Amino acid sequence: MSKKARNSKSSTAKVVIGKPNKGINLLGSSLSLSGVRTKNRQHRVKPGALPGIEHIADASTAPAPDSICINYIDYCANQLETGSVTDLDAFLAKPLRDWLTVRWINISPPHPYVINQFRQHFEFHTLAAEDVMHIPQRPRVELFDDHLFVVLRIMQLIQAEPSNINNIATSNELDSEQVSLFLYDNVLITFQEEKGDVWQPIRDRLQKDNVRIRKNGTDYLLYALLDAIVDHCFPVLEQYGDVLEALEQVTLNNPSVEVLHSIHSVKQQLALLRRIVWPMREVVDQLYREEDGRITDTTKPYLRDVYEHTIQIVEIIESYREMASGLTDLYMSAVSNRMNEIMKVLTIMASVFIPLTFIVGVYGMNFEYMPELTWRWAYPAIWCFFILLTIAMLFYFWRKGWIGKN
Amino acid sequence: MSKKARNSKSSTAKVVIGKPNKGINLLGSSLSLSGVRTKNRQHRVKPGALPGIEHIADASTAPAPDSICINYIDYCANQLETGSVTDLDAFLAKPLRDWLTVRWINISPPHPYVINQFRQHFEFHTLAAEDVMHIPQRPRVELFDDHLFVVLRIMQLIQAEPSNINNIATSNELDSEQVSLFLYDNVLITFQEEKGDVWQPIRDRLQKDNVRIRKNGTDYLLYALLDAIVDHCFPVLEQYGDVLEALEQVTLNNPSVEVLHSIHSVKQQLALLRRIVWPMREVVDQLYREEDGRITDTTKPYLRDVYEHTIQIVEIIESYREMASGLTDLYMSAVSNRMNEIMKVLTIMASVFIPLTFIVGVYGMNFEYMPELTWRWAYPAIWCFFILLTIAMLFYFWRKGWIGKN
Amino acid sequence: MSKKARNSKSSTAKVVIGKPNKGINLLGSSLSLSGVRTKNRQHRVKPGALPGIEHIADASTAPAPDSICINYIDYCANQLETGSVTDLDAFLAKPLRDWLTVRWINISPPHPYVINQFRQHFEFHTLAAEDVMHIPQRPRVELFDDHLFVVLRIMQLIQAEPSNINNIATSNELDSEQVSLFLYDNVLITFQEEKGDVWQPIRDRLQKDNVRIRKNGTDYLLYALLDAIVDHCFPVLEQYGDVLEALEQVTLNNPSVEVLHSIHSVKQQLALLRRIVWPMREVVDQLYREEDGRITDTTKPYLRDVYEHTIQIVEIIESYREMASGLTDLYMSAVSNRMNEIMKVLTIMASVFIPLTFIVGVYGMNFEYMPELTWRWAYPAIWCFFILLTIAMLFYFWRKGWIGKN
Amino acid sequence: MSKKARNSKSSTAKVVIGKPNKGINLLGSSLSLSGVRTKNRQHRVKPGALPGIEHIADASTAPAPDSICINYIDYCANQLETGSVTDLDAFLAKPLRDWLTVRWINISPPHPYVINQFRQHFEFHTLAAEDVMHIPQRPRVELFDDHLFVVLRIMQLIQAEPSNINNIATSNELDSEQVSLFLYDNVLITFQEEKGDVWQPIRDRLQKDNVRIRKNGTDYLLYALLDAIVDHCFPVLEQYGDVLEALEQVTLNNPSVEVLHSIHSVKQQLALLRRIVWPMREVVDQLYREEDGRITDTTKPYLRDVYEHTIQIVEIIESYREMASGLTDLYMSAVSNRMNEIMKVLTIMASVFIPLTFIVGVYGMNFEYMPELTWRWAYPAIWCFFILLTIAMLFYFWRKGWIGKN
Amino acid sequence: MSKKARNSKSSTAKVVIGKPNKGINLLGSSLSLSGVRTKNRQHRVKPGALPGIEHIADASTAPAPDSICINYIDYCANQLETGSVTDLDAFLAKPLRDWLTVRWINISPPHPYVINQFRQHFEFHTLAAEDVMHIPQRPRVELFDDHLFVVLRIMQLIQAEPSNINNIATSNELDSEQVSLFLYDNVLITFQEEKGDVWQPIRDRLQKDNVRIRKNGTDYLLYALLDAIVDHCFPVLEQYGDVLEALEQVTLNNPSVEVLHSIHSVKQQLALLRRIVWPMREVVDQLYREEDGRITDTTKPYLRDVYEHTIQIVEIIESYREMASGLTDLYMSAVSNRMNEIMKVLTIMASVFIPLTFIVGVYGMNFEYMPELTWRWAYPAIWCFFILLTIAMLFYFWRKGWIGKN
Repeated sequence: MSKKARNSKSSTAKVVIGKPNKGINLLGSSLSLSGVRTKNRQHRVKPGALPGIEHIADASTAPAPDSICINYIDYCANQLETGSVTDLDAFLAKPLRDWLTVRWINISPPHPYVINQFRQHFEFHTLAAEDVMHIPQRPRVELFDDHLFVVLRIMQLIQAEPSNINNIATSNELDSEQVSLFLYDNVLITFQEEKGDVWQPIRDRLQKDNVRIRKNGTDYLLYALLDAIVDHCFPVLEQYGDVLEALEQVTLNNPSVEVLHSIHSVKQQLALLRRIVWPMREVVDQLYREEDGRITDTTKPYLRDVYEHTIQIVEIIESYREMASGLTDLYMSAVSNRMNEIMKVLTIMASVFIPLTFIVGVYGMNFEYMPELTWRWAYPAIWCFFILLTIAMLFYFWRKGWIGKN
Repeated sequence: MSKKARNSKSSTAKVVIGKPNKGINLLGSSLSLSGVRTKNRQHRVKPGALPGIEHIADASTAPAPDSICINYIDYCANQLETGSVTDLDAFLAKPLRDWLTVRWINISPPHPYVINQFRQHFEFHTLAAEDVMHIPQRPRVELFDDHLFVVLRIMQLIQAEPSNINNIATSNELDSEQVSLFLYDNVLITFQEEKGDVWQPIRDRLQKDNVRIRKNGTDYLLYALLDAIVDHCFPVLEQYGDVLEALEQVTLNNPSVEVLHSIHSVKQQLALLRRIVWPMREVVDQLYREEDGRITDTTKPYLRDVYEHTIQIVEIIESYREMASGLTDLYMSAVSNRMNEIMKVLTIMASVFIPLTFIVGVYGMNFEYMPELTWRWAYPAIWCFFILLTIAMLFYFWRKGWIGKN
Repeated sequence: MSKKARNSKSSTAKVVIGKPNKGINLLGSSLSLSGVRTKNRQHRVKPGALPGIEHIADASTAPAPDSICINYIDYCANQLETGSVTDLDAFLAKPLRDWLTVRWINISPPHPYVINQFRQHFEFHTLAAEDVMHIPQRPRVELFDDHLFVVLRIMQLIQAEPSNINNIATSNELDSEQVSLFLYDNVLITFQEEKGDVWQPIRDRLQKDNVRIRKNGTDYLLYALLDAIVDHCFPVLEQYGDVLEALEQVTLNNPSVEVLHSIHSVKQQLALLRRIVWPMREVVDQLYREEDGRITDTTKPYLRDVYEHTIQIVEIIESYREMASGLTDLYMSAVSNRMNEIMKVLTIMASVFIPLTFIVGVYGMNFEYMPELTWRWAYPAIWCFFILLTIAMLFYFWRKGWIGKN
Repeated sequence: MSKKARNSKSSTAKVVIGKPNKGINLLGSSLSLSGVRTKNRQHRVKPGALPGIEHIADASTAPAPDSICINYIDYCANQLETGSVTDLDAFLAKPLRDWLTVRWINISPPHPYVINQFRQHFEFHTLAAEDVMHIPQRPRVELFDDHLFVVLRIMQLIQAEPSNINNIATSNELDSEQVSLFLYDNVLITFQEEKGDVWQPIRDRLQKDNVRIRKNGTDYLLYALLDAIVDHCFPVLEQYGDVLEALEQVTLNNPSVEVLHSIHSVKQQLALLRRIVWPMREVVDQLYREEDGRITDTTKPYLRDVYEHTIQIVEIIESYREMASGLTDLYMSAVSNRMNEIMKVLTIMASVFIPLTFIVGVYGMNFEYMPELTWRWAYPAIWCFFILLTIAMLFYFWRKGWIGKN
Repeated sequence: MSKKARNSKSSTAKVVIGKPNKGINLLGSSLSLSGVRTKNRQHRVKPGALPGIEHIADASTAPAPDSICINYIDYCANQLETGSVTDLDAFLAKPLRDWLTVRWINISPPHPYVINQFRQHFEFHTLAAEDVMHIPQRPRVELFDDHLFVVLRIMQLIQAEPSNINNIATSNELDSEQVSLFLYDNVLITFQEEKGDVWQPIRDRLQKDNVRIRKNGTDYLLYALLDAIVDHCFPVLEQYGDVLEALEQVTLNNPSVEVLHSIHSVKQQLALLRRIVWPMREVVDQLYREEDGRITDTTKPYLRDVYEHTIQIVEIIESYREMASGLTDLYMSAVSNRMNEIMKVLTIMASVFIPLTFIVGVYGMNFEYMPELTWRWAYPAIWCFFILLTIAMLFYFWRKGWIGKN
């Protein structure tokens, strides 16, 4: 319930439309799948609607100037200028400086009006412009005559402090943010859903003169941004490693049904992660194999390096998924072990006392002629017999391994 | 039972021959598979029958004029004329207006006589004509010299109000309707099983002058229709999301065997959905790669967009199927948890009372020489012993986690 | 046992060598796998034997004339002659009539002597001749210089009346018959294991003058025969649909181990069916792609239609296999549900009566000083206590959902 | 234990190095996997050792003349000479007779010295010579300039008489023998591990003049040997069919844990069989597609026939594996059925007697004022009540299907 | 805990950064997954960092001379010189001797400074240099203009003495060491993580004059090193064979939950092993198919031999994984067998004694008129009845197979 409230709120304040998997809680109170549904719900306004971006309501009205943040960095090997855009039309109209080799414009969040302005100035395809807007898209590359269009996703695992041992995975949310890049000869335009800090190290590296990134063109900048996004998956995977380790402990100690639920949530999140990383691998591969010269030969070995990383990520995800499957088996085994233990207690109790109860019943019978009843030492004798029988039974169960051994 | 009645009725009033999966009820009273069987039963009149449409009984007799609805829309960028056909022969004989760039004829439902008339006028292949008639066909494209033949399916999930928590998926029926399209240079002919409202948004868009759809040819119209059909899958998927979420709740709270049945029904429906969407992906891809110029370069980027959507749909279906598999595990776990709980109650009851019963039996024995029997405080003392023993046992079970903890 | 008797008998009367899967009984008294074994046992006389047909004992001695049935149909568009061959040598020696466009010779069953005669006259490869004889072969096409060799299998599900609810699938036998075809320019030779009635509709269609089949050549006849064989799978699949539906009912009502056995038998039969239909798909595809002109362009669209049918069959088989897998899960769940129910009864009985028995034991003790024993209303009071305690326990179990609810 | 003894013994008497899967016992006393390990243990002397055969200790010292058996058969269409080689050097030095078209030399077992001698004379690659020696190799073909090198494996299932019903598969051992063939224009050299009788039928066929095998060259002889090896798999598969059938009976009647162990052993053996047959399929296919003319066009259709057989074998193995999987499910079901039965007995016993015991306890109480105790017919009346209650309970369980029905 | 301590320690003493799977303990006290996580944790300093090796802190400061071991072997067919490098700059500056055909330089462990020096002298790509440093990398080949770059991994299973039967796999650690090779015309540079002894046999072989390895170039040396690495997997596999065998014994005798955990650990380790061997297969294949002449035709058949070995290793791993899966089933079955046994004991005890207890209760009733109570032989008679009933019950259970039979 609070989920829907959050969703509707966010659609005004921050553009989080379709932030697709926000809702897969790993475990705990709200075992809902709703997060997966929102992914589709907001994909398109409705089936049969007009394609393209021009017809969207907001596309023709400029947004409040402080709700959108447009930054640019102009640089060449030995000069750098950064700025923030307030008057978009003036900014687009002004020609590029002579000295710059690369202008990187970053827009966050992507507003229809802004996208449309850029579309008109840089002549994107209307569908590319629409895809910047409509979230989520699968990561992909599209080659156009004078530019490349790349869609990527940044993964993030939002992890709250677990409140108790059972809720180990409760507050995990696998979040993903969409990033769209347009690569021109001198200009790289990036649209980010949120002004995250994934690219902050790149911005820092750009500050130094004469480093490799300053000496190369837009394609190397594209590589650097790609590399930052891909490498950002490693800490996410580490967090999953932690979650799996914790789940393993809980499975062995306290196999409740919530734990299984949690294991399945992790499995699904890993499947989702894989579905996002796999096309990113293809994106990198397509860029590597691009043959129109938009990616220079200098940059290509670096792309190959990123490619190796995507493969590593996919392999780690696969091994985590196998671990999660192993945990399911372990869980099932732990549950049936517990059952075994319960049955053992019952059987031992019943097997020891049922014969004894029979015997005390025998001497509770009211037959007139029962010689034992009048014997002097009958009562102590029968207690001895009880004790011996109990010891014999317990020894039998001990030998069967039901007592004392694990 | 009522199902068969419905089927036989429908074969007269509305042509619903082979509406293939109507009968897969998700859950509830009639756990029948019959819907799957009807799919095959009505496929062909009988093995070894003549191929082609000419020989079908109804092919030569015109149907009642009001049982079939033939509409046409003629348009160019700035002119539009819509109409409904009553005299088919006259309509076909009349030449196309000079000004029109596209004529879209929509026939619903496909009657053998009408198909045959069109076949003769537009020179379809007799097998294509037969495929319009015989339902269900797999989605596919066939390229002929002067026209394209496309078969598609529109998915629909008919969802009734669930009567109680157990029947959450009872009234779901995955319905699919077949659509056949013939693409000529200026004419697009579509046969719909039922005059559904999937294409209503397209008809509305056509009303406006100078929009993109009016400025382009039949290939763009084909794209628009395709896009509407593909996007229509998203709401269907959303409904499955709701069903899965509800099933998850029921699985955790009340894991009856009907729930498992229901989960399997959902799995099967998703498998069916996948089997229908997957070839639609191929259809879009084939149209995209078509090289005879029947699909213009302007339209192709739009087809690529549709292609991305089909991939997204397939991915969502896959993730839903994994969720359903997860639910099966969850169900099994919930069932064995319940068993565990039952065993715990039995074991605690038995373990607490069996020793006590033994002891009361001891003092029910009739031995002459049992000193305790005559002690003054023996009876209160033994009650104290009973209570202490019970507390000890319960403490033991509490420490084992069988009482009080979850 | 009776199985082996049948097999040995059949090897004399009717040539049923290797009728491969005759023995997979779905369920019931004889849960044997022997049928699968006979498949291999009779494949070859022995490893290392001579290849080819000339060396087989019967290849040089003519069979009894009435044990083999050789029919021919000569036809062109407006003339038709049918006949039965008694003198094989004379028949082969006589040249073809001038007017005929197609001669279709059908031999059943394939006898080594007859095969050898045809081999010598039509110059088959000796291995092709051997494959006509040795059963079962995988469906396949072989292209020779002047003829095509096609091997196919006709599926049949022999279904006896089920005697009781448990034996629902007992009397099902998946039978398959091998058909070999040699396609020449004017002659089509077919060898059938049994003179079945799968092709009767084709023979009937041939009787009419000027129908499409009469106006085309041997390739169209080949298509018609293929189409009849492929379409013959649909009723077989329908029967499996019925069996699955019945099994589902039995699984839910009475999950005995025989039901599981039966489900697995159906699964295996479907797997077998798939293994036979899949190469038939390839056969049709290969014929469709054949480029030597032996299959005319007129016939090819018809072959494509058959191809679509084979794909549909494979898809239906796949969905049936998934259903059978679902039934296995359902079965397991029904069994553990039953266990749950048994445990519930035990637990309720024990939990209610064990405390009561303890209390009656207490007042059966023989202590001298038990004040309650002498109270006037102690006995009625204790009965009230018993009843209240029982009600309390039952209420507790009812609240837990073990009584009264499903 | 006896296993290791056998292994060490065999390493002296017969060269059974690496006979890889000898040790997979299907079932019974020694449930060891050791057989699988020996496979690897003897693969290479040690990592980092010299490649090639020259350096092996025995390569330069001739073996005892009677420990190795070298036979040759020289033949053309109408002449044949067989012999056994005693003086290897002289034999190799002597030129081939003029009249012969094919010389077939068979060596068994492969001794390093002999291999080395042949290597020098026929100029094999040193690695090929090493592969003859080092067992096991994967079946494969290698093409050299003037010869072909083929490695194959002959499967054999050594089946002892089962001692009791549980040990049905105890004494099965899947044995495989390596065969290496070198194909030259006039000479075919074969190395067999053991002088088995798989090729005896070929030797017999060679005795007759003017049969096909005598009229063709080394390639046809290669085909005949291949065919014998491949067809030798069919009896092995039949034996597995018998084992599976027997296991099915045991599973239904007496599902002990050894049965499951046995099923898994069969599964593993079938997997192993598949791993050996699959590359043999590739070998045949490669020979069929060989284009240097070393395989003549006459022989190729025969190879295609062998190819079909390998596919049939793989398909049968697959279906056997599915059967084995089905048996696992059946086993699990039989076990839980047994559990159900045990629980039913317990529940019926407890449910019938616990209430009765309560009642007798009631009348064992020592209250002073219990009017029933003094009634005249109380005792017979309570017996009637006991009997009626028991009948009611039994009727209840009978209606639930726990008694009397299956 | 001790794990982390070890990790942090090792980062100073020996460069074991990212030794990836050190922590997968098979079984026992510390069931942690942490080892898997360390794999990723140390992969990169942080996302967005500078690519290349120049910027690493240690790259410009020479390490302590005794912490790194650089050896070289110069050889031609008849001359050999080995040495250890102390002054790296002088060593690199000195030109190669005239007589040498191959110089093999081995560096261990790879220190940034040393790598950087070699990078500048031999002109590696900066990313290749980085990959030598950053561990783990996937095995792969990269082709550059004048050199090849190969990354491989050496597997090692560190096996401690198992302390008890349960801990059979406790002390196993699958360790992997990274090796990087640069192949030039006359020089082969190898970087090893640890100066292991995998290549010792190669060094020994190099000592002999005129052996094949001395007569060939760097490519043959590369092959020899590759071969040693690949063959080193066989003993690792053997150890897994031992572990599996031991686990099988434990599973049958004492199926505790730790055993299942252990089985899953083995499965994961085998999966990991496969993930490492599979790309090594590709490496060998790529080298085999290399067409620039850097691998000579003499060496290629040897590479093919290595390729066959990698395939064998993958097949053995696959069969081990299937065995591990079989063990999981076996485990589950052993657990439920144990449950069955427990239930049997309970049921037999309860079923025998509950009726007896009922009867003794009957004669403990206090009715005044119970004729049996006064009979003379009633007490001995009832004992006879007890004994007979017990025998009857035990006979019944024996016939059901619950007693005495297995």
